[in-house]
Amino acid sequence: MKWNKQFARYLQLSLLLTSNVFVFATAAEQITKQKNGSALNSPSQYVNPFIGTANFGATHPGAQYPQALVSVAPFNVAFEGKSANGDKLNPFEKDAAWNSRGYIFENKLLTGFSHVNLSGVGCPDLGVLLLMPTTGALELDAEKYGSTYQAEQASPGYYRTVLTKYQTTAEVTSTLRSGRSRFTFPAGQANILLNLGLGLTNENGGSLQINSATEVQGSRTIGTFCYHSEQARPVYFVARFNKPAQRFGGFKKMPLYKNVEAEWMPHNNNYKAYPFHRQLLSGDDIGAYFSFDNKADEVIEVELGVSWVSIDNARQNLDAEQYQTAQRLSFDELRQRAVNAWDSLLSRIDIDASSTEKTLFYTALYHSLIHPSIISDINGDYPLMGEFAADKPLFGNNKNQPRYSVFSLWDSNRNVHPLLSLVYPELQSAMVQTMVAMSQEQGWLPKWELVGIETKVMVGDPASVVIADTYLRGIRDFDVQTAYQAMKKAALTATNNPLRPENADYLQLGYVPVDDEGPYDGSVSTSLEYYLADAAIGRLAAALGHAEDAKLFQQKSLNYQKLFDTSTGMLRPKKRNGDWHSPFNPDGGRNFEPTAGYIEGTAWNYRFYVPHDVPGLIKLLGEDEFVRQLDLTFDSGKFDMANEPDITYPFLYNYLGQTNQSSARVQQLIKQHYHNTPAGLPGNDDTGTLSSWLVFSMLGLYPTDPGNPTYTLFEPAVKSARISLNPAYYPGKTLEIQQNAASNSSYSWQEKALKTPFISHQQLVQGGVLRL
Amino acid sequence: MKWNKQFARYLQLSLLLTSNVFVFATAAEQITKQKNGSALNSPSQYVNPFIGTANFGATHPGAQYPQALVSVAPFNVAFEGKSANGDKLNPFEKDAAWNSRGYIFENKLLTGFSHVNLSGVGCPDLGVLLLMPTTGALELDAEKYGSTYQAEQASPGYYRTVLTKYQTTAEVTSTLRSGRSRFTFPAGQANILLNLGLGLTNENGGSLQINSATEVQGSRTIGTFCYHSEQARPVYFVARFNKPAQRFGGFKKMPLYKNVEAEWMPHNNNYKAYPFHRQLLSGDDIGAYFSFDNKADEVIEVELGVSWVSIDNARQNLDAEQYQTAQRLSFDELRQRAVNAWDSLLSRIDIDASSTEKTLFYTALYHSLIHPSIISDINGDYPLMGEFAADKPLFGNNKNQPRYSVFSLWDSNRNVHPLLSLVYPELQSAMVQTMVAMSQEQGWLPKWELVGIETKVMVGDPASVVIADTYLRGIRDFDVQTAYQAMKKAALTATNNPLRPENADYLQLGYVPVDDEGPYDGSVSTSLEYYLADAAIGRLAAALGHAEDAKLFQQKSLNYQKLFDTSTGMLRPKKRNGDWHSPFNPDGGRNFEPTAGYIEGTAWNYRFYVPHDVPGLIKLLGEDEFVRQLDLTFDSGKFDMANEPDITYPFLYNYLGQTNQSSARVQQLIKQHYHNTPAGLPGNDDTGTLSSWLVFSMLGLYPTDPGNPTYTLFEPAVKSARISLNPAYYPGKTLEIQQNAASNSSYSWQEKALKTPFISHQQLVQGGVLRL
Repeated sequence: MKWNKQFARYLQLSLLLTSNVFVFATAAEQITKQKNGSALNSPSQYVNPFIGTANFGATHPGAQYPQALVSVAPFNVAFEGKSANGDKLNPFEKDAAWNSRGYIFENKLLTGFSHVNLSGVGCPDLGVLLLMPTTGALELDAEKYGSTYQAEQASPGYYRTVLTKYQTTAEVTSTLRSGRSRFTFPAGQANILLNLGLGLTNENGGSLQINSATEVQGSRTIGTFCYHSEQARPVYFVARFNKPAQRFGGFKKMPLYKNVEAEWMPHNNNYKAYPFHRQLLSGDDIGAYFSFDNKADEVIEVELGVSWVSIDNARQNLDAEQYQTAQRLSFDELRQRAVNAWDSLLSRIDIDASSTEKTLFYTALYHSLIHPSIISDINGDYPLMGEFAADKPLFGNNKNQPRYSVFSLWDSNRNVHPLLSLVYPELQSAMVQTMVAMSQEQGWLPKWELVGIETKVMVGDPASVVIADTYLRGIRDFDVQTAYQAMKKAALTATNNPLRPENADYLQLGYVPVDDEGPYDGSVSTSLEYYLADAAIGRLAAALGHAEDAKLFQQKSLNYQKLFDTSTGMLRPKKRNGDWHSPFNPDGGRNFEPTAGYIEGTAWNYRFYVPHDVPGLIKLLGEDEFVRQLDLTFDSGKFDMANEPDITYPFLYNYLGQTNQSSARVQQLIKQHYHNTPAGLPGNDDTGTLSSWLVFSMLGLYPTDPGNPTYTLFEPAVKSARISLNPAYYPGKTLEIQQNAASNSSYSWQEKALKTPFISHQQLVQGGVLRL
Repeated sequence: MKWNKQFARYLQLSLLLTSNVFVFATAAEQITKQKNGSALNSPSQYVNPFIGTANFGATHPGAQYPQALVSVAPFNVAFEGKSANGDKLNPFEKDAAWNSRGYIFENKLLTGFSHVNLSGVGCPDLGVLLLMPTTGALELDAEKYGSTYQAEQASPGYYRTVLTKYQTTAEVTSTLRSGRSRFTFPAGQANILLNLGLGLTNENGGSLQINSATEVQGSRTIGTFCYHSEQARPVYFVARFNKPAQRFGGFKKMPLYKNVEAEWMPHNNNYKAYPFHRQLLSGDDIGAYFSFDNKADEVIEVELGVSWVSIDNARQNLDAEQYQTAQRLSFDELRQRAVNAWDSLLSRIDIDASSTEKTLFYTALYHSLIHPSIISDINGDYPLMGEFAADKPLFGNNKNQPRYSVFSLWDSNRNVHPLLSLVYPELQSAMVQTMVAMSQEQGWLPKWELVGIETKVMVGDPASVVIADTYLRGIRDFDVQTAYQAMKKAALTATNNPLRPENADYLQLGYVPVDDEGPYDGSVSTSLEYYLADAAIGRLAAALGHAEDAKLFQQKSLNYQKLFDTSTGMLRPKKRNGDWHSPFNPDGGRNFEPTAGYIEGTAWNYRFYVPHDVPGLIKLLGEDEFVRQLDLTFDSGKFDMANEPDITYPFLYNYLGQTNQSSARVQQLIKQHYHNTPAGLPGNDDTGTLSSWLVFSMLGLYPTDPGNPTYTLFEPAVKSARISLNPAYYPGKTLEIQQNAASNSSYSWQEKALKTPFISHQQLVQGGVLRL
C-alpha cells in the first residue's frame, strides 16, 4: 500500500487540504470530524452529476470517486420497454444506434447499476457488472425485470432513486476500486440480481462462482472498444451481501434450441436458474441471484470490489477500501470518504461566482477528474499495456505509483492535461509516468488506451503533445529521456508504425495524401495532428538541448503549409502527386459522416487547426481574411462546439489582439452550450475535454497551443478565482484571477499591464494576481 | 493415493492376474515385460470397439480405460455436412432428433475427439472437451473445419484415424482420468483446436485460460441429462502440448448483432480469435487454438487431464497418470497400460470359442466394464451426490475407496450388477459403497445418477434391488444397515419421495393408478419395478433377521396380482377406483411412444415382468397359457430385444422345465441381434445391460431374478469357460462351465445332475464344473 500513502501525500500538498483525508482515514471519528468541517470548503456540493447525461454528453450520474474507473451508475439503455400508453420507455436503446452511454437522461427503463463505467466517451465499452434489486417472484430476464424509477438524486459519490415497480429505494456509493449499494425493500421476497450478460460493451461472456449465501465472484469480458478494436480483457469482481440470502443461485440464458431439442428442452432461448449452484458457471449471458425474505423497509447492502488482474485482487481491493481494521465501513462513511476526496481535489480552485456558475464550474472540474483513471490494485498490480504476445507478461506491479488508464489523448491533449498540469501537477506527473511505462511495455506511446488495450481510435500522435507540454510546464519527475526516444520513434518510423500508420507518406511528402484514405482516416486531420506533434517534439528537443532535432521537427511542423490551398483558404486534402483532391466539399464530414480529408469535422472545423503556428497561418491567409473567415465560421453555423477540432477558434482573435472579440465569443459559447441541465454539455464530454474547455473558459485563460506552455487570456466568467498551486512542483502558492471591474481595462499580471493577451505558464506558477 | 493401491490390490486378487499391472506400474520396463508376456493371455485383442456404434447401440469406438468416464472418442454428430454429390455426410445430426451418441458409425464428418463420454446411454450428455487437429490457415468454425476420415482402427485403449481433409493421422489413448492424443501432421501450418462450445450435452458454457504456449486450463458445463434433468455441473480440465505452439489464442462465437452493431462489429455471429489471450475467456461457444509450423510427419501430442472437482485436481490427475517420477510416459506406454488394465479384467473369464464368438463375448464384457465409472480424483476428491443446497458441501474425499458414477440402475440392476458381483465382486462392493454414501449425502439412494446428479430418469426403485442382490450374493463389506434403512425409507415414505414419487398411491392401493399418469410415467411399469424392489427388500430383511419386514415386503411384492387382468392375461393399467383403464391397447408404447401404463415398452414387453414371482404369474395365467403367450410374444414380433423390460423372456421357459426352448430362444436371439459389426448390438447398450445379457447368455446362465442369488441355466454358446473367482469374496478358485457334447444331456454341477435348470450363486462360488 506504499503508493497509496505517497499518492495521498501528493494530494495533501495543497495547503488548503492538509487536514483532509483522501484515500484512507485512520478512524471513523476522523471522517465525522471531516464531515462536520467540510461544509466550510465543500465545492462538491455544487456538482450536478446530471449535467451531460442528455444531449449525448455521455457522462453518468452514478456514484463516482475521483479518478476511478469503478463507479456505480444507473443503467437504462437496454431494451426499448413500453409505457402504459405504448410509447418506448427507452427512446435511446443501446443497440439501435451508435451509443456510448450506459445512462441516458431521456430513457426511463432501468435494468441495474453497472460497476465499471466510462464518462463522456463517444464509443461504447464497459457498463458491466450490473446489480439490480427486484421484489416478488424471481424474474431473471432483464427485459422483464427492468423498472421505471423516480426521485433521482445525484451528488459526488452518491446516487439514489426509487424503483417504481418494486417500491425499492436504491442508493449507491463507491470507492476507487469498489462499489457499495444500499437497497431498502418493502416486506416480502426481495431479490438482488448480479447480471453478467447485460452491458454496454460489445463483448460478452462471463463466469461466476457463488461461494456462499453472502458472496459471489467472477469475471466479465469487455473490449472491442468503439466496435472495431478487437482486443478484450476480463474484469474480475467479488461481491458480498451484508446478510445471507435465503435462496441463491446462478442463471443463464439458454440457447435457441431447434427440432427435437426445442420439443424437449425445458428452457429454450430463455433464462434458467441454477439453484444453489456453487461451482463455476460460464456463458454469454449469465448471472447470479440472491433472494431474501424481508420485513418492511429492510435494508440490504451489497459491496462489490473490482480488479483488472484477478479475483483475489478484487477481494483485496474490496477489503482494503470498505473495511477498516476488519470493521466494515458504513454506507454513509464510504459516501463521506468520496465527498472528502472530491472536496480535496475540487477545492484546489476556489471561485467567486453565482451558485449556477459554481455548479457549471465545479461539475466541469469534476468531469475533468474522472479520466484518466487509476486501474492498479491496492497491492500495486495492473494489466500491462499492449497486445498479448506469446511470452509477454500480463501484469506489472508498482507499489510506488498508481497506474492510470483511459487515455483518450486525441481529445485530452488539448486541455485536460494542461489543466491537470496547472492545478494537479502531481496527478499529471503520475499519468505521464504511466504513459512512459506503456511505451516501454508495448514499444509505443498510447493513443487511445483502455485497460491496457491500445484501441487505435482516432488519429494523430497526441501522446507526444501531452508529454512535451507536461515537461515544458515544469513537471519533470518522469523519465523524459525514455519518453523523448519513444516520441522520436513514433515520429520517424516509416512503416509498421501503429501510432502513425501513414508515416511513410508523411515523412516522404510532408503530408498524408488523400489517395489511399479509408472512410474515417482523414488525411488532412491526420496530417494536422502530426504537425502539432512534431512541433511539440521539436520544442521538447530544444528544451533537452537537442538543437538539430529541434530544428528538424520544427521544420516538419510547418509542412501544414503544403496543405494550404490558396484558392479556398482551406487546409485541403491533397493527392500523392501534389494535386488537390477534387471535387472539394468543405462542408463534408458533418455528423460523423465520412468525407475525404477529415475525421469528426469538416474543412471548416480544421481550417484554423494549426495550434503551434497560428501566426504562420494568419500570414498565409492575411490578417483581414483570417478574421473574416473566423467570423464567417461562427456566423454561418460552421462552428461545432460539440467536437474538438475547432474548440480553440474563439480564442484565435487574440492572436490579432482582438481580445474583446475572443471574450465575446467565449461568453456566447458558454451561454449557448453549457447549462445546469442534463443537456448542459454540447456533446460527448470526451473524457472531460468539453468540461475542461469550460473550466479554462470560465477562468479567463486557455492553452490554445498544447506543447507550448502559454495561455491566451480573455474575460473570465467568474468574478475571481484562486488556484492553490502544488508547492512540490511550483514556486508560487496561489494563482489569483480577478475580473476587471471595467470591461475595457487592460489585462495585468502582478498589477503590471500585459502587452499581449498571452501569458506563460512559467509566470503564472510563480503565483500572483492576474486581472482580466 | 492410498485407495489406488488398495484398489489395485483388489484387481490383482485373481490368481491369473497377480503379475499384471493395473493402475500404476513401478517402472517402464515392467510395462514392456507385460507387453511381451501379454499375448499369452490378452483377451483385449478380441475386443471390437466398433460393435454398438451403429443401430443406436450408443457405444463409442474411442480410447477407453476400464471404468473410466474419461475416454477419447471421435465425435461425428455435429452438422449435417455435404459430400461431393450433395448427400448429407452426417445423416444422424445430433440435434435433428433425439440423439444420445457422440459417434455414429453411419456418419462421416468428424469435428474432434471428445474427452468425457458415456457409453451405451439412451440420453445425451457429456461428449465435451473436443480436440481437433487441422492444417493450413486457422479456421475456428467447427462446421467448416470438420473433416471426413478413413482408415479407422479401434482396440481397447486405442483409436486411430486419418483425417482426409488434413492428411493428418490422429491416434488417441487414455487413462482413468486423462487422455493422450498423438497427431502426425504433414508439412506446413498445423492447428490443434480445443473446442468448449461443441458437445453432445444440451448444456453449454465454458471458460478457459491459456497459461503458456503449451498449456490451457478451464471448464465446461454439462448436464440437463436426457433433455429434462435441469441440474448441471462443470467438468474441469488441464491440457498440455509436448511442444510450444508458435501461435495460440482463445476463440469465441460472437453473438448475432443487429442494427448499428451489425454494421460496425467485425465479427457478427461468427468466430473471433483472441490471439495470445492468456486471461480468462468465457462464453457459450469458446475454445483455444494452438498453431505450429511443422516439418513433414511432425508429431504433436496433447495430454488432457479431467476432474469433476477443480482445475488443480485435473492437473494432479494428469501428472499422476501420465508421468512417472516426473518423466512423461510415451503414448505407447500409456496405450500399453490401458491394454494391461483391460486384460487384467477381461481375463477373469477365459473362454473356449471361435474367434468371432470371442469377439462378441469379450466386447460385451468390455462394454459391461465401462459404467459405473470412477469419478474421484487421484487425491480422493469427488463431487457429492444430490442437488445443491445453501450450506451443503460440494465435495467429498475418500482416499480409501474410488467414487463411482453413472448408475443407470433401471437398466443395470437386471444383469450388469449381478455379473459384476459374480466376476468382479471387489468392484461391485466399491460401487455399492458409493451408492450407500450417496444415500447419506442426499437422503436417498440413486436411481439414474450422473456425476452427482440424480437425473430422475426412468422409474422404479432399482438401487434396492442392486443392494439386496449384492448382499445376498455374499458381498458384505459395505454398510448394509445404512443401506437397509435407506431402502426402507424409499419404500415407506408416502410423500416427497423422489425415488418413488407415486408412493402415496402405491402404499395405499398396492399399485400406481393410471389416473394422474404423465406421458412417460408408466403406472404399470412403475408398479412392477416397485414390486421387484419390495421383493428385494423383503429378501434382504429376511437375511438381516427382520422377519416382520421380510413378511411385509414380500406381501407388498405380490400386489402385482392386482394389476393382472384375467380378461386379457396382461398386467394392465388400473384406475384409482379399481376400474381397468380403457380402451386398452397392448401394442401401445412401441418406439418410445407415450402410452397409458407403460414406459419404454408395450404391455407385451411387461406382461411377464414379475422376476421375483414368475411361478406366481404362471399360476395366474395357467402353465399352458403362459407358454402359449410367451411363444406368441416371440413369434408375432411382440418381443423387443432392444430394450430391457422383456429381456428375461427367453429364460422363462425354464420355469416350466422347457430348457430346450429357453436354449433355442437364447441362441436364436444371439444369432439375430449380436454380430461382429457396428450394428452388432440390438439397441442402446444401456451402460452394458444388453452386453451383460450377451455375456451371461453365451455362458449358459442368467440371473432372471435380481435380488435372488440364483441363475437359470441353458445351453452356452461357448464350448467352455473358466471364471476366476475372487478369493477375497468367494471360497472357490474357478468356476468352469462346459458345454455338453450331446444336446440332450442333463445339466450337472460337480458332475451331479441338476434337477432343475437353476443353480444358486452360493453353489457356483464354491468353484467347480458346471456342465450344460
